[in-house]
Amino acid sequence: MNFFQSDNNSGVHPNILEGINNANEGIAAPYGNDDITKKAIEKISEVFGQDVDVYFVSTGTAANIIGLAGLLKPFEAVVCTDTGHINVEECGALQVFSGARILYTPNSSGKITKEDIKPFLSSIGNEHESQPKVIYISQTTEEGTIYTVEEIKELADFAHENNMYLHVDGARIANAVVALDSTFKEMITDTGVDLLSFGGTKNGMMMGEAIISFNKEISKNFKFYRKQGMQLLSKMRYTSSQFIPYLENDLWRENAKKANDMGQYLLEKLTKIPGIKVMDNMETNMVFAHIDEELTKEMKDRYGYELLDEEKNIARFVTSFDTTKEEVDELIHAIEAI
Amino acid sequence: MNFFQSDNNSGVHPNILEGINNANEGIAAPYGNDDITKKAIEKISEVFGQDVDVYFVSTGTAANIIGLAGLLKPFEAVVCTDTGHINVEECGALQVFSGARILYTPNSSGKITKEDIKPFLSSIGNEHESQPKVIYISQTTEEGTIYTVEEIKELADFAHENNMYLHVDGARIANAVVALDSTFKEMITDTGVDLLSFGGTKNGMMMGEAIISFNKEISKNFKFYRKQGMQLLSKMRYTSSQFIPYLENDLWRENAKKANDMGQYLLEKLTKIPGIKVMDNMETNMVFAHIDEELTKEMKDRYGYELLDEEKNIARFVTSFDTTKEEVDELIHAIEAI
Amino acid sequence: MNFFQSDNNSGVHPNILEGINNANEGIAAPYGNDDITKKAIEKISEVFGQDVDVYFVSTGTAANIIGLAGLLKPFEAVVCTDTGHINVEECGALQVFSGARILYTPNSSGKITKEDIKPFLSSIGNEHESQPKVIYISQTTEEGTIYTVEEIKELADFAHENNMYLHVDGARIANAVVALDSTFKEMITDTGVDLLSFGGTKNGMMMGEAIISFNKEISKNFKFYRKQGMQLLSKMRYTSSQFIPYLENDLWRENAKKANDMGQYLLEKLTKIPGIKVMDNMETNMVFAHIDEELTKEMKDRYGYELLDEEKNIARFVTSFDTTKEEVDELIHAIEAI
Amino acid sequence: MNFFQSDNNSGVHPNILEGINNANEGIAAPYGNDDITKKAIEKISEVFGQDVDVYFVSTGTAANIIGLAGLLKPFEAVVCTDTGHINVEECGALQVFSGARILYTPNSSGKITKEDIKPFLSSIGNEHESQPKVIYISQTTEEGTIYTVEEIKELADFAHENNMYLHVDGARIANAVVALDSTFKEMITDTGVDLLSFGGTKNGMMMGEAIISFNKEISKNFKFYRKQGMQLLSKMRYTSSQFIPYLENDLWRENAKKANDMGQYLLEKLTKIPGIKVMDNMETNMVFAHIDEELTKEMKDRYGYELLDEEKNIARFVTSFDTTKEEVDELIHAIEAI
Repeated sequence: MNFFQSDNNSGVHPNILEGINNANEGIAAPYGNDDITKKAIEKISEVFGQDVDVYFVSTGTAANIIGLAGLLKPFEAVVCTDTGHINVEECGALQVFSGARILYTPNSSGKITKEDIKPFLSSIGNEHESQPKVIYISQTTEEGTIYTVEEIKELADFAHENNMYLHVDGARIANAVVALDSTFKEMITDTGVDLLSFGGTKNGMMMGEAIISFNKEISKNFKFYRKQGMQLLSKMRYTSSQFIPYLENDLWRENAKKANDMGQYLLEKLTKIPGIKVMDNMETNMVFAHIDEELTKEMKDRYGYELLDEEKNIARFVTSFDTTKEEVDELIHAIEAI
Repeated sequence: MNFFQSDNNSGVHPNILEGINNANEGIAAPYGNDDITKKAIEKISEVFGQDVDVYFVSTGTAANIIGLAGLLKPFEAVVCTDTGHINVEECGALQVFSGARILYTPNSSGKITKEDIKPFLSSIGNEHESQPKVIYISQTTEEGTIYTVEEIKELADFAHENNMYLHVDGARIANAVVALDSTFKEMITDTGVDLLSFGGTKNGMMMGEAIISFNKEISKNFKFYRKQGMQLLSKMRYTSSQFIPYLENDLWRENAKKANDMGQYLLEKLTKIPGIKVMDNMETNMVFAHIDEELTKEMKDRYGYELLDEEKNIARFVTSFDTTKEEVDELIHAIEAI
Repeated sequence: MNFFQSDNNSGVHPNILEGINNANEGIAAPYGNDDITKKAIEKISEVFGQDVDVYFVSTGTAANIIGLAGLLKPFEAVVCTDTGHINVEECGALQVFSGARILYTPNSSGKITKEDIKPFLSSIGNEHESQPKVIYISQTTEEGTIYTVEEIKELADFAHENNMYLHVDGARIANAVVALDSTFKEMITDTGVDLLSFGGTKNGMMMGEAIISFNKEISKNFKFYRKQGMQLLSKMRYTSSQFIPYLENDLWRENAKKANDMGQYLLEKLTKIPGIKVMDNMETNMVFAHIDEELTKEMKDRYGYELLDEEKNIARFVTSFDTTKEEVDELIHAIEAI
Repeated sequence: MNFFQSDNNSGVHPNILEGINNANEGIAAPYGNDDITKKAIEKISEVFGQDVDVYFVSTGTAANIIGLAGLLKPFEAVVCTDTGHINVEECGALQVFSGARILYTPNSSGKITKEDIKPFLSSIGNEHESQPKVIYISQTTEEGTIYTVEEIKELADFAHENNMYLHVDGARIANAVVALDSTFKEMITDTGVDLLSFGGTKNGMMMGEAIISFNKEISKNFKFYRKQGMQLLSKMRYTSSQFIPYLENDLWRENAKKANDMGQYLLEKLTKIPGIKVMDNMETNMVFAHIDEELTKEMKDRYGYELLDEEKNIARFVTSFDTTKEEVDELIHAIEAI
């Protein structure tokens, strides 16, 4: 039974797999100097409406950390929420690779505001304290909420006013764009984001992650950071090629829409079950719910269900591009049966 | 006028300076292989009631960071309060030197409890998250409060039960020992502390800091960490020699008592001034007080007083071994004059 | 025209690609907790004749650096030749990720001997110097030469006698095993190698690299190093699945044999061309040759040939599993035409 | 008996000690914001003939590594000789603190030339290789030789032509200036050196080391690097105050001249002893000599003499500002007695 543990559990969309298979033609220059990689970069530039700098890597962690390391000196810091992915899920990768530190604040539904960041600004110039230099947000957030386009613009403006950068972790950026009926250009390029981790793996790719820089000055040394970050793929065409079908014919949008629709369908169904209290503001493919202790116990006993945050009895359900109504229904029936 | 900014503003106690002058006799083996350094280590072992490992360094930051780096692998973490010195005052030195990270919790009057640490234990074994390995406390805390001997023992026991270490930042350890009428042995050795940053600079030394390990197994490689940490002093005798007069005839106790007494005298006086609200629990040489905004403004205008945390209107006053009643009275009069 | 720049220029062998396509079945646990990854690890254990620890990653750099970081404390060092891949081709990745350093020696035909390493042993225990802890060799070496099985055993024994480890960079291990008509077990497991970077990308895989530990005690924390090294692939099955067809039916051997055979064919042909002096001891798929300056110039003008190390007029030619006799002949004719 | 092991074995010159004692007057702003530190910086600027940036630290390792870390990004490298102090005597401090690496070349009498550095320039722009960014030299070198003023200028020019910096490790800079009858200004400021580790400890100070930057743009963030490097001394006046008597009345020159004179006296005497072959080019306070194996053995047996590099039978003798003719004669007689 599909327990909706993560959108990482899904396989690869057939069009993406076809793209990879098609890339397997003859010899090609290694390390990204091939035509497929060039084409993928052009495609990304087109979709974002700007001639951007692109660095393909194989994990979301690498996209985040290598990009941030390129922006941060060791005595500087990135500011994010306590729930930020770089703060809780990356095993200190930023610290070891860059020497820089993370300053974290409590979150408001997974989001950070200017007011949360301001207290850190008093450190500027004081050599006893790490210097805040980058604001990090996730879109979609780890709590399943979304920043509006205006909120992103406000954070970008605030960053620039204070000689800082705005970095967006877009592991689930497609789901947010779809939920807000926006575009990559409108949400990222036009708001003034400096750096984006453009994630595709959770939306149907195999290992498709890209660091996108909207300011070539800040990324002029990124090729060295990627290599030193152990992420310069020799046969890069097999990673970059995934972005071509992903961006052509809006496959990204189609996949994210399917995932979001199933998320909303699941949310609706869960809401009706007694003993389950669905949390607010879920607009994408992630649903969080408080689950009655008894119910949790039964789920474990009957199905070996393990995903729940047992301490707080909160479960996270994530739908994906390939989630079916039948799978959702099966989960709902299993819960109802208890 | 003395504004009681810090106990770092004071000079060196005459006995300590005499010790340094006396060390200046002929040639001596460098890098700590001299007789004075050996004697200082014996003296420390005597006072702590155990044959301890000792590494002299020149700053409190170095004592903390080199010691912690020796305990932590890069994927591990130290847990402390948000106000911990390593968290707010060391410019990310731990991160760059060890690769490890800091996990911080809200504090209760500057202190951390078992309950604050427990949530981090759920990360153990999960490769996505830094592994908690060391508990860091300051004694005296940055808020001027003190852990009781029992509280330290409780934290040490909790650390060891969870395969962790307890590290004590003792930049102001003497003031705490005096305030509790305890001893170094009772407070540190007997409670099971693993590692101590034994600070003397704030209590009358020139640059007297020592890393003391109570477990030779954990510190067997510390000499390499000190050298790599750029702190292997070539003419070490001039640092180590300071500890001999400091520990002989209980100079450390005499100095700390003077500082504490003056702190309590200042506290009493401040309490009586309208517009000033002294914060609770100050038992050593640090006094924190909310100060009326008007009063602050006047102090600034008349005396150029700059120390206050303007945002919260909280002032920190620190007395020292050489603080005089006259200096306190002068400050009080200046405030009353307004 | 194929200029034999690298075995990274080749595509993916059809059987490997089929393996990847077959992995695309339904949902699977992420981060290596899937059945395909388990099967790949079993397959590797079988081939190496030991229940080994395996960590899949996406680049050879990551395999080398994450493995070495797991063995090295920051004050320790890895010893290798000046031509070692970690020394010249990894942009300081070891230094930034582990803090440890590289000590390099002149090489003898790309190889290192006990005699080269001995001078570094005098540093042991001296805190002024990095402590030698790992010997690193490449098999096949960067110069195209091969260590005999006896030479590897001798280095492993020497390492263990001196409380060090032997690490083998096996980016082209298959070519060496084939050239010596040996097996992975005989060459690596039985000689006492501690850690192997088991490379498949250069022998027909897409991004198939694995860290293999022959001593579970040394690798007990490797899962944290891999995650912190930004290499924990979420959909790991697409990487691990490549190893199954690679090891089944000895595809690895077949591929390496083809590459080696073409290498030897190319070597033979090159030897006969005046103005080209082929370097000795090439037994695998890499051929090095001094090329006459005039000839080089002509090659550049006519074919845009760029591979040559212009300073020394040495060219490296690398054949691959998919190199054809026709391609070699075409290159030879092009050279002869000049 | 004085075995001339190092100039670190000496004590502190009385004038320096007096300077420290004089600094012990009342309270003073900590962390270098005191008047004594300001005066010391002015004094240094005066001697070097330029308004320089100065950062006091407590060890020579710290001066070198913090300065270099301020110049280097993690993917960059410093080029030096194999015998360079940062390469052999600093336990990998540069690597762990900056992430950058060291590229070393064979030396010519302890020195490096443009020709030695040129081969590394081919790495520029190649993301697989660390980018050479700083040239490091020691003056006096670890072999006891001296760069002429012209040689330093040539290296500085070469560095700047190639977008690199020249860093001088001046642990024994005073001895070189005296030997060449030059000045700090002529040798360092006027030749275009970018960064100097200005060492005083080996020439009569207690712990007197300063990072001097001749280009305020490159050092604008150095205060953060010093703090993060654990070297921001709280009672800095006791370190900075040493530089005032050192530079006033040319005490530095007097001390270095005494040391050099004794070095040359020792050299003369040693030259006449059969079985000892003094190495060329020793013009300062360091003398290197091949010593007959028999003689070495006798010295060990009779005097417990341990300093010799036993492998090569090379002994280093270092004289100091407080070395007396009697001490030299005593050593010579001891040798002759054998």
